[in-house]
Amino acid sequence: MNLIEQTIKDLETIREQKPLVHNITNFVVMNHSANVLLAMGASPVMAHSTEEVEEMVSLASALVLNIGTLEPKWVEAMILAGKKASCPIVLDPVGSGATKYRTKTAKNLLNELKINVLRGNASEILSLVSKETTTKGVDSVHSVDDAIEIANTIAKEYNGITVAISGVVDYITNGKKAYKCENGHPMMTKVTGLGCGLTATVGAFCAVQKDYTLATIEAHGFYGVCGELAAKKTSNPGSYGVEFLDALYYCGADELRESLKIKEV
Amino acid sequence: MNLIEQTIKDLETIREQKPLVHNITNFVVMNHSANVLLAMGASPVMAHSTEEVEEMVSLASALVLNIGTLEPKWVEAMILAGKKASCPIVLDPVGSGATKYRTKTAKNLLNELKINVLRGNASEILSLVSKETTTKGVDSVHSVDDAIEIANTIAKEYNGITVAISGVVDYITNGKKAYKCENGHPMMTKVTGLGCGLTATVGAFCAVQKDYTLATIEAHGFYGVCGELAAKKTSNPGSYGVEFLDALYYCGADELRESLKIKEV
Amino acid sequence: MNLIEQTIKDLETIREQKPLVHNITNFVVMNHSANVLLAMGASPVMAHSTEEVEEMVSLASALVLNIGTLEPKWVEAMILAGKKASCPIVLDPVGSGATKYRTKTAKNLLNELKINVLRGNASEILSLVSKETTTKGVDSVHSVDDAIEIANTIAKEYNGITVAISGVVDYITNGKKAYKCENGHPMMTKVTGLGCGLTATVGAFCAVQKDYTLATIEAHGFYGVCGELAAKKTSNPGSYGVEFLDALYYCGADELRESLKIKEV
Repeated sequence: MNLIEQTIKDLETIREQKPLVHNITNFVVMNHSANVLLAMGASPVMAHSTEEVEEMVSLASALVLNIGTLEPKWVEAMILAGKKASCPIVLDPVGSGATKYRTKTAKNLLNELKINVLRGNASEILSLVSKETTTKGVDSVHSVDDAIEIANTIAKEYNGITVAISGVVDYITNGKKAYKCENGHPMMTKVTGLGCGLTATVGAFCAVQKDYTLATIEAHGFYGVCGELAAKKTSNPGSYGVEFLDALYYCGADELRESLKIKEV
Repeated sequence: MNLIEQTIKDLETIREQKPLVHNITNFVVMNHSANVLLAMGASPVMAHSTEEVEEMVSLASALVLNIGTLEPKWVEAMILAGKKASCPIVLDPVGSGATKYRTKTAKNLLNELKINVLRGNASEILSLVSKETTTKGVDSVHSVDDAIEIANTIAKEYNGITVAISGVVDYITNGKKAYKCENGHPMMTKVTGLGCGLTATVGAFCAVQKDYTLATIEAHGFYGVCGELAAKKTSNPGSYGVEFLDALYYCGADELRESLKIKEV
Repeated sequence: MNLIEQTIKDLETIREQKPLVHNITNFVVMNHSANVLLAMGASPVMAHSTEEVEEMVSLASALVLNIGTLEPKWVEAMILAGKKASCPIVLDPVGSGATKYRTKTAKNLLNELKINVLRGNASEILSLVSKETTTKGVDSVHSVDDAIEIANTIAKEYNGITVAISGVVDYITNGKKAYKCENGHPMMTKVTGLGCGLTATVGAFCAVQKDYTLATIEAHGFYGVCGELAAKKTSNPGSYGVEFLDALYYCGADELRESLKIKEV
């Protein structure tokens, strides 16, 4: 089955099975990520207390960890949930590189837990490369080759996890195979939490597709197409946010066949 | 006065008096519940710190407790606020039954505080029935009779509080009299926090209607009619959320007289 | 340059420079304030952990402190960030006067930190006047003269900071010069967090305009015009919230020249 048909099939499976996605995420996007998951067809739950995260993650089909608006008690809960999880774990290192606390926490989560997918923007992902292996710095991320090189370095450093660098073009790799996605729209940067919502969407696809690298490219493609569909309806950010949630709900086989731009590289 | 005219009168009283509803609720829905209360005509306040909840609840006309995204410090604040409250208290046992911590906390709040209204979905409410009295389990909730039986059991166990089991059809009882409501729309399950917003709405009606069982059925009817009004405007969840808030604002006597489906059973 | 042209110029600078505005704010409005800042052209960041606020504020062009949904650990973070900040600091004393904890915290922040702008509604601002200097009480705020007198009292008490009393008409003063703004719309009170979003907007203008009193009146004018633009599109609160974010994005020189009602008094 080709990539596009596989994406359609996995999206349909999400909508049939409504997998429970457990999010330990930041205060800014909790409502939005829950609405993203509901709109696309999954079932969100937000729970962060050390008293209950282990029990909650046992019910879940994916665990999404997001370090925006971080604090120590929440990191403790992420570790507890992550160690207990038998489902795939997706990490969004929001703001890694901006403060030492975030960088240290993101690396700590990568080292302590068996993270399956790491998704962030270029600067966040770069901040996680060990000093020894960082040879070019942020400014060097100009080409597909450079981004893939960095992602491959991290994939190797962390035992073959899937690394997604999201941007105008998204690159996804596990060190062995790599994909790129050219879907998306600049308006997606004008609504807060759309990156975090993408990470939650990766969680939903991983809940139904055991090849997590494949699940990650599918999620990027689907999400990007929805971003394009919303941009056809409005050019202002308030209504864009609304149209985007609508698109996550109605986007199906026809829209994906017409617009999906994902491929192996 | 019949149920429909009483609902209209109490809604108008809310819009005139703008009662202050104090919410100690979860991170996911804080913004949404505040907007629900504002849109329908009440005044929301969110405050959860043990340093101030007792003083804040003294200013309020209703207290709404919601155990989503729970943590110990917040439970402590709920107990403090609830013990101090001289206004009606409404409890939403979000996720009770999903984790032991939530079930235990919900029961603890019911035992420690004089809760006036308990509102949740069937599985949440069922999780609060003592083992001795649970004889049929979740799967048995098929009929109106079954749901009323369970709600009656809880109403008796907790000193005649009003119990609302929300679903496709809502059942409300205090063990002596019971109502059902057939308003609502499936799209209401596609926007996060609409159940929590209903609990806040019950709080607003309890602030103006001393018969809390009556207030609870009124809130369910009004809220359900707004859900139906929104569904006439759109069939996608992003815009549905927007239309629903709009409906809470413009829905009045005409809409309620035309669509309200609440009755004593 | 006159006030209107200066406002246009400073708004354009925000949209060019996209200044980073660090918010330590309440749970209710985090998502909304981030979207307000993004829509108008600034870059929001939310971070509240004592582990990272000092490092985060070092990257910021403005710091916005907001005491809604307050708790002790957050106050500690506000103090740490405020002491470290070399950028302008804006304080929103949400709910000051409603509980002793909020009033005490707002005064504490004013005394411990070099706050540049204090923005609130009349009752919040009044709660911060020392007992000795409060001679008239809340009910006396009837006229422009009264409001300016109170604001001037506070401006003197706290070393010439800019004080903004927002309401139907906004008054802004630093004790030496004063402005009023007659823009805005009653629908702005029907969406939660619009006051908090105004404070964030003041932060964004202070990031590009060193005369913070001028920056504050500009922010009030721009924000009020956007409130008027949104009201031309809808009269219901759900869609008003969406239209308001849209207006923050598209409102530019033409709209400001046509509608801005700000002047020195």
